[in-house]
Amino acid sequence: MATYKVIGTRPIRHDGVDKVTGRALYGADIQMTGLLHGRVLRSPYAHARIKSIDVSEALKHPGVEGIVTSADLADPGDRIAELGEGSVKLHDLSSNCLARGKVYYQGHAVAAVAASSPQIAEEAVRKIKVDYELLPVVIDVRKAMAEGAPILHEGLVTESLAANGAKKPTNIAKHVQFKLGDPDKAFQTAAVVVEREFNTATVHQGYIEPHNATALWHHDGTLTVWCSTQGSFSVRGQLAELMEMPTSKIKVVPMEIGGGFGGKIRVYLEPVAAALSKKTGKPVKVLMSREDVIKATGPTPASHIKVKMGADKNGRLVAAQASLAYEAGAFAGSPVGPGCMCIFACYDIPNVHIDGYDVVVNKPATSAYRAPGATNAAFASESVVDEICEKLKIDPLEFRLKNAAKEGTRRADGPTYPRVGLVETLQAAQSHPHYAAPLAKGTNPHFKRGRGVGIGFWFNIGLKSAVTATLNADGVVNLLEGSTDIGGTRTSLAMQFAEAIGLSASDIKPAIGDTDTIGYTDVTGGSRVTYATGIACYEAAQDMKRQIIERAAGIWKIKADDIAFDDGAVFAKSDASKRLTVKEFAAKTAHHGGAVTARASVDPVFPGGAFAAHIVDVEVDPETGKVGILRYTAVQDCGKAIHPSYVEGQIQGGVVQGIGWGLNEEYYYNDKGELMNASFLDYRMPTALDLPMIDTVIVEVADPNHPYGVRGVGEVPIVPPPAALAAALHNALGVRMSELPMSPARVVKALE
Amino acid sequence: MATYKVIGTRPIRHDGVDKVTGRALYGADIQMTGLLHGRVLRSPYAHARIKSIDVSEALKHPGVEGIVTSADLADPGDRIAELGEGSVKLHDLSSNCLARGKVYYQGHAVAAVAASSPQIAEEAVRKIKVDYELLPVVIDVRKAMAEGAPILHEGLVTESLAANGAKKPTNIAKHVQFKLGDPDKAFQTAAVVVEREFNTATVHQGYIEPHNATALWHHDGTLTVWCSTQGSFSVRGQLAELMEMPTSKIKVVPMEIGGGFGGKIRVYLEPVAAALSKKTGKPVKVLMSREDVIKATGPTPASHIKVKMGADKNGRLVAAQASLAYEAGAFAGSPVGPGCMCIFACYDIPNVHIDGYDVVVNKPATSAYRAPGATNAAFASESVVDEICEKLKIDPLEFRLKNAAKEGTRRADGPTYPRVGLVETLQAAQSHPHYAAPLAKGTNPHFKRGRGVGIGFWFNIGLKSAVTATLNADGVVNLLEGSTDIGGTRTSLAMQFAEAIGLSASDIKPAIGDTDTIGYTDVTGGSRVTYATGIACYEAAQDMKRQIIERAAGIWKIKADDIAFDDGAVFAKSDASKRLTVKEFAAKTAHHGGAVTARASVDPVFPGGAFAAHIVDVEVDPETGKVGILRYTAVQDCGKAIHPSYVEGQIQGGVVQGIGWGLNEEYYYNDKGELMNASFLDYRMPTALDLPMIDTVIVEVADPNHPYGVRGVGEVPIVPPPAALAAALHNALGVRMSELPMSPARVVKALE
Repeated sequence: MATYKVIGTRPIRHDGVDKVTGRALYGADIQMTGLLHGRVLRSPYAHARIKSIDVSEALKHPGVEGIVTSADLADPGDRIAELGEGSVKLHDLSSNCLARGKVYYQGHAVAAVAASSPQIAEEAVRKIKVDYELLPVVIDVRKAMAEGAPILHEGLVTESLAANGAKKPTNIAKHVQFKLGDPDKAFQTAAVVVEREFNTATVHQGYIEPHNATALWHHDGTLTVWCSTQGSFSVRGQLAELMEMPTSKIKVVPMEIGGGFGGKIRVYLEPVAAALSKKTGKPVKVLMSREDVIKATGPTPASHIKVKMGADKNGRLVAAQASLAYEAGAFAGSPVGPGCMCIFACYDIPNVHIDGYDVVVNKPATSAYRAPGATNAAFASESVVDEICEKLKIDPLEFRLKNAAKEGTRRADGPTYPRVGLVETLQAAQSHPHYAAPLAKGTNPHFKRGRGVGIGFWFNIGLKSAVTATLNADGVVNLLEGSTDIGGTRTSLAMQFAEAIGLSASDIKPAIGDTDTIGYTDVTGGSRVTYATGIACYEAAQDMKRQIIERAAGIWKIKADDIAFDDGAVFAKSDASKRLTVKEFAAKTAHHGGAVTARASVDPVFPGGAFAAHIVDVEVDPETGKVGILRYTAVQDCGKAIHPSYVEGQIQGGVVQGIGWGLNEEYYYNDKGELMNASFLDYRMPTALDLPMIDTVIVEVADPNHPYGVRGVGEVPIVPPPAALAAALHNALGVRMSELPMSPARVVKALE
Repeated sequence: MATYKVIGTRPIRHDGVDKVTGRALYGADIQMTGLLHGRVLRSPYAHARIKSIDVSEALKHPGVEGIVTSADLADPGDRIAELGEGSVKLHDLSSNCLARGKVYYQGHAVAAVAASSPQIAEEAVRKIKVDYELLPVVIDVRKAMAEGAPILHEGLVTESLAANGAKKPTNIAKHVQFKLGDPDKAFQTAAVVVEREFNTATVHQGYIEPHNATALWHHDGTLTVWCSTQGSFSVRGQLAELMEMPTSKIKVVPMEIGGGFGGKIRVYLEPVAAALSKKTGKPVKVLMSREDVIKATGPTPASHIKVKMGADKNGRLVAAQASLAYEAGAFAGSPVGPGCMCIFACYDIPNVHIDGYDVVVNKPATSAYRAPGATNAAFASESVVDEICEKLKIDPLEFRLKNAAKEGTRRADGPTYPRVGLVETLQAAQSHPHYAAPLAKGTNPHFKRGRGVGIGFWFNIGLKSAVTATLNADGVVNLLEGSTDIGGTRTSLAMQFAEAIGLSASDIKPAIGDTDTIGYTDVTGGSRVTYATGIACYEAAQDMKRQIIERAAGIWKIKADDIAFDDGAVFAKSDASKRLTVKEFAAKTAHHGGAVTARASVDPVFPGGAFAAHIVDVEVDPETGKVGILRYTAVQDCGKAIHPSYVEGQIQGGVVQGIGWGLNEEYYYNDKGELMNASFLDYRMPTALDLPMIDTVIVEVADPNHPYGVRGVGEVPIVPPPAALAAALHNALGVRMSELPMSPARVVKALE
């Protein structure tokens, strides 16, 4: 592999000090002369028709300056908004921001008030009178698919199902299907076939920072919005649709973001704040409470999955079949598609049949969550694989190596893999000391210990990124990019630019532009930023080098053809005395032509995809069902780790979220569709006290599409944990868990 | 001349609505969590040694968080800061921000307090005890030059004077000299020689918005400053010196600016706010009052000028001689150099001798003011020319045409003119109805009426500018530039980009970047922005066109060689069916490669210079000395007027300031050097009620160095008014005024 000077080192992050000293500016920090405060009225009911909304009393409340309802947002109908990770029908997006005719889940926004203080807005919200007609509630994906279920959207008729004669309204918003070979025939040749059903719960991304938006409607019909988002241009595009204005009339300023994980791509508050500002003529800030976030943003779907897999006596998978039903929540759009594409993506299986169903239920509309759809799917397929290994008495990593997808393997959904690194990842897991170490005995003889493995796949995406860069006279480069920085991409991008131009990471000063100052850049999601925006950084550095060569030709009065750039310096090929490092050259720009400004816009092909293999040791108290994690090792192909500490942090973060999903996290609803645990006290995420240090192993199989071989890193680590934990629990207890989370109560019940 | 679609039209200004509705954000609007408020302690004395500063009582005042003095700023010694328009010794710049050892003028900053409220800061300032040793004061340029004058800077010895044996301390900071031919000999051949002396007063730019600065010292040693400035990069550079840090550790965010006219280039509050923030660890905002602005920022110098000119009997100037003594104020750096270069710049005179003296006095350090130094000089030389015309009985415009500088004329300070437009300007003035119209009789028979003319020159400069531009999918271009917008340059730049790319002005969305988001750009001054940043816009549009052609090649799958861009569209030369307007192409970028981002950095040669000819009719009440303006016509060569309304506005604004300078404005000092009129009530600027509509005539002699022929516009209109008014007063009253302002009291005195 190439040797690098900057890439692969661990410099201090550029935004670190500001963040730990409280100087970083988040959306909630926005202050402005004449700022009004918005509050949202939310539905107490999970399913109801809105017969009327009476805002007259609320409007009379002193200090109230304006109230908006769905009438203040456009209804763009059936057109689709591509959000980078997933898409949404614009009618649904609008109706989710402010309910149009019906509320579909408890917490659904109905109206919003702008007032001189948050307290007054809160009081006024309580004075809005909504006349609801209650409707029957359905909050379970299987019940929603059943004959006679309450129908959420009367107009919803799914084409592919209608073809089967079912021309009546349904809660099944979409049916996807992938076929490869002849599974029915192949299953008959299998030495072992395992078929199981699985259920997973609704879980939330759990980002620290609640959603927020401040909008200023200017009197010339332009709009400025400050918010916490994964994609400022995505917000701009969504606002343009919902406010019916050209994108270029909107400026979105992305503030620092306290976590997103996929949940801060679609808009919630931004159109509400914009409509309130338009109505009042003043700037309006709207913040969510934690309860709002849990009840009314986009968690990831609960699901019901059936998997059937068969292998021959040599341990080669011959056929696989799956049916995945994902809860979309209130509006169509669960990640069941990616779930179907990922469920068998780690394996080279010649015969596959996959059906996916996107099903609406009376829960908040789901949105992306780190490798959307893949974790649910892997829990199911990996649990079946573990059982096959048990039956065939084959080491689970050996079995996976035997069946591993590699360059040339065709996935059931169509694509054939380019160079990918699953084999190398599995080999690294096999040879890791963790896998060789025996399970140590614990101090409590009643506790049971076990080990499990699980693997996972995520695509990673490319999409559009823009970068501009300016060389200062002191040799520091201002790097302006459009990707909001959630996981440290500011630094991983700066490092790539530094490598390409021959400077150090601290010589690059990265900043994130608003939508008026940088070119169109897609969302921070799909593990794309270090890959795609990294390519933009590389290309911008090439543009800078070309200009440095041209300028040097002028300084030295020789032809540009005789000049080269290498190893951080520009020099005359024919005259060794003519040589300037970038810093020396930069100092000359103060007198020669001014700053060098460089730019790049890219839209690269998608990378090859990322694979992970996890090993986990657990200890279970059979009496209480509590599961403790003794040791956890996550191995992953990262292509090339630009900043290994960040890569490790991404892997550790993903694992922890996967552990929470596997063991604890779930939305508890009562029969009325009321959420019973909308707080971080009752919605239990793992804390540092619950976990050991997560070991990470970075495998580097370069992606040929990126100049430095980068693959996306951030998402795939969340995929294997629930499956690995289930395998470990089986190893410890001898029972197979088929439902997430594998909470203490469920473990005890399974043991009974 | 070329025909244009956008250039020469009068679109609505992009920032107009925000400014008239109060939505534009100025420095005083900055709010921030934990913001402290700074106040500056200023010297009550015009000249004193600081024996001690005791801040102990002030520090104990509840709410006070920090106090700074000159010890908190670096003293970079003799190094020079180039400020774009003029330069300054960094020791002086630092000592002007916070007095170091001595105070040199009343209002000189001595210390500053940061406290939790402006009121507390104000109270604490009064508790700082400064022990002053009073020193003798000199506030007049001639007295300061005289033998035995109080010396401001003990170490000041001027080299060129020392060569004459005067090796002792002096108040003459600089002596400049320009010689051409042999004036002494030539004067002997003259038919008429006029020699006169003139005095002009200290006047202030009078911008509406007082200086302000908010600084945030980050804990990683970086600094962010929000301020009102003509040059964000200039502020960055000055701060880097005074705070001893690399420029790239500083981010300067230029807020909207409520006027500058040259007075918002050097820093006053920015280093003070930065030092206070560094000391307190919190953001600090410091605002000036109007009194602070008048007493302690940089007005333009009072001056004493001697002029001798001679012409032959045919009305050809044969020789000219001048001696200009300009008050620098507290520190060296008056614009006497440009004054010397401009004084005879309108004329083709073969024999010239000019001496200039930069003289320190106990007044605030002067700074640039619209065509710095030229107005004082033109008042003197144009008054002498008017007297020569009178003596030779030649029409004053005819005389000027006879002697007009043109392409090939050599200026006494060295350069030879390229294509310039003085002749065309004079011809336009001659043929203007105003010049042909007789002076109408007034209603009051005691009042006297008269007409005068005056002409003026200003260089205009080039310097460095950077621009980036992004094409949005809706066909609107985000144009990011580094030039702070004082006079509407946002729109004049957008129009040039629009012209070059084939869009309309409203399709371009201009914005001004901070120092982290745009390449190095010199100050908004020297009438350079529409010229130099305009060239950057043109070049960035070419970069955008090149990329559009490359992308089109990809879309059409043909060679880029076969593609051209013209008239706002990209098309295949060989296939008429392949044609996309920029807007059509832009829509495709959403699916083809993303945004097109373009850039340019330029450092063009200086333009040829600008000339103006003014005609004014006045009515004088001999009893009170009040001068009323009946009619005013300003003719000016603008090269090419991008937005004629703005050009007219610039001309009108310059004329009004010149009228104020000519008739009313002056700093009144008592003998102790205390300023007696530091308010807009007592410092009398012309208002709309004092003035008629100023007629403007735009002459367009294209500057060959600019793609659209632009010359700078903003400064030269301030140059002729005092001289033209003096000529008109002579025409009305028969007396020649030799001192500015020609206030009622002076008019009455002259008539006595």
